[in-house]
Amino acid sequence: MSDVPPCFDEAFQVRLATLIAWRRDVRRFSDRPVPESLIEGLLDVAQLAPSVGNSQPWRWVRVDSPVKRDEIRANFVVSNDAACKAQPDERAAVYASLKLEGLGRAPFQFAIFCDRSIEQGFGLGRRTMPEMLEYSTVLMISTFWLAARAAGLGVGWVSILDPGEVGRILEAPVSWNLVAYLCVGWPEAEHLDPELERYGWQNRTSAGRRVKII
Amino acid sequence: MSDVPPCFDEAFQVRLATLIAWRRDVRRFSDRPVPESLIEGLLDVAQLAPSVGNSQPWRWVRVDSPVKRDEIRANFVVSNDAACKAQPDERAAVYASLKLEGLGRAPFQFAIFCDRSIEQGFGLGRRTMPEMLEYSTVLMISTFWLAARAAGLGVGWVSILDPGEVGRILEAPVSWNLVAYLCVGWPEAEHLDPELERYGWQNRTSAGRRVKII
Repeated sequence: MSDVPPCFDEAFQVRLATLIAWRRDVRRFSDRPVPESLIEGLLDVAQLAPSVGNSQPWRWVRVDSPVKRDEIRANFVVSNDAACKAQPDERAAVYASLKLEGLGRAPFQFAIFCDRSIEQGFGLGRRTMPEMLEYSTVLMISTFWLAARAAGLGVGWVSILDPGEVGRILEAPVSWNLVAYLCVGWPEAEHLDPELERYGWQNRTSAGRRVKII
Repeated sequence: MSDVPPCFDEAFQVRLATLIAWRRDVRRFSDRPVPESLIEGLLDVAQLAPSVGNSQPWRWVRVDSPVKRDEIRANFVVSNDAACKAQPDERAAVYASLKLEGLGRAPFQFAIFCDRSIEQGFGLGRRTMPEMLEYSTVLMISTFWLAARAAGLGVGWVSILDPGEVGRILEAPVSWNLVAYLCVGWPEAEHLDPELERYGWQNRTSAGRRVKII
């Protein structure tokens, strides 16, 4: 890559905003195979994400084993049933109608952990906020997600899982904290609106847009 | 925005990877004023970030008050001195030589909180992983950061702060958890390599690039 600082013109900035607008949490995947080389390229780009102290604490586990996938999915079902029961009656039916994961068809599935035991970064930037390690892992996932969408791939972040159980199923070291379980594949369809809006769960609001000035 | 799904060609994908590569954590800002309208536009784009259950739990506090800025900076100095003292002797001198914040000159400064008390999203996706609220806030920050860099702005994430104290200084509700303190402005210079690499603290490694397949 050239070491001349790039300038991103207005056309690119608009295109980037379009990418951000069209990034979705995808739960419906097509059967079309995803080339391994495409995933590898996205992993390379994701490495350039920010991390506290340059610690790069993210750890990837690719779940190919059908047995392990079944175990993860069983954990989702238990967690999701409990979450549905915890909803008040008037919302439980809508909750039950939502499709909240793509574990059945996603060709690539990754558990992303944060290694809390790492030396890399020598603790810089995380003494008063140790959670910066997990936040760095999220920054990497965000980077991967946008790059994947630009390549036409859909990513779905499944969080309705017991993180400790997922670590046990995947034989992760005890110092690894599950941050995300990602489903990756070609989406069945592209949408500008999130499924949770489309199916009546939760619209976006302006609450987070307001800025308090002090 | 058109509701025809966009297709991002290879040229855009390469350009996006260039943006990701050139996004830096900026601590050295120029005095050139930043138009308010530019910040407003970036805040609009950041709203399109993913959030668990569409909860959008991020809360922005813009810190304009010189008195409040001084209090934040004093908190940084205390936190940073303690962090420096906690380093082993052989690293303390390098640590002390690093510039780890741009609190002195950054024209825009924002404390970003996560509101743990929100109803929005109705708890979806965060029963087994309540930390998804903070992770959603990080996803928004990541989105803002890339959009800012595309516009030529630098962003620096300061984490060497006592998060509870920052909340107290800024009179935040007790349910608001500080996720980041951001400095925003035009960077003095653009670099492809992170400062922590350039000044010998921590190079990037391949540890997080390896994928375990199970």
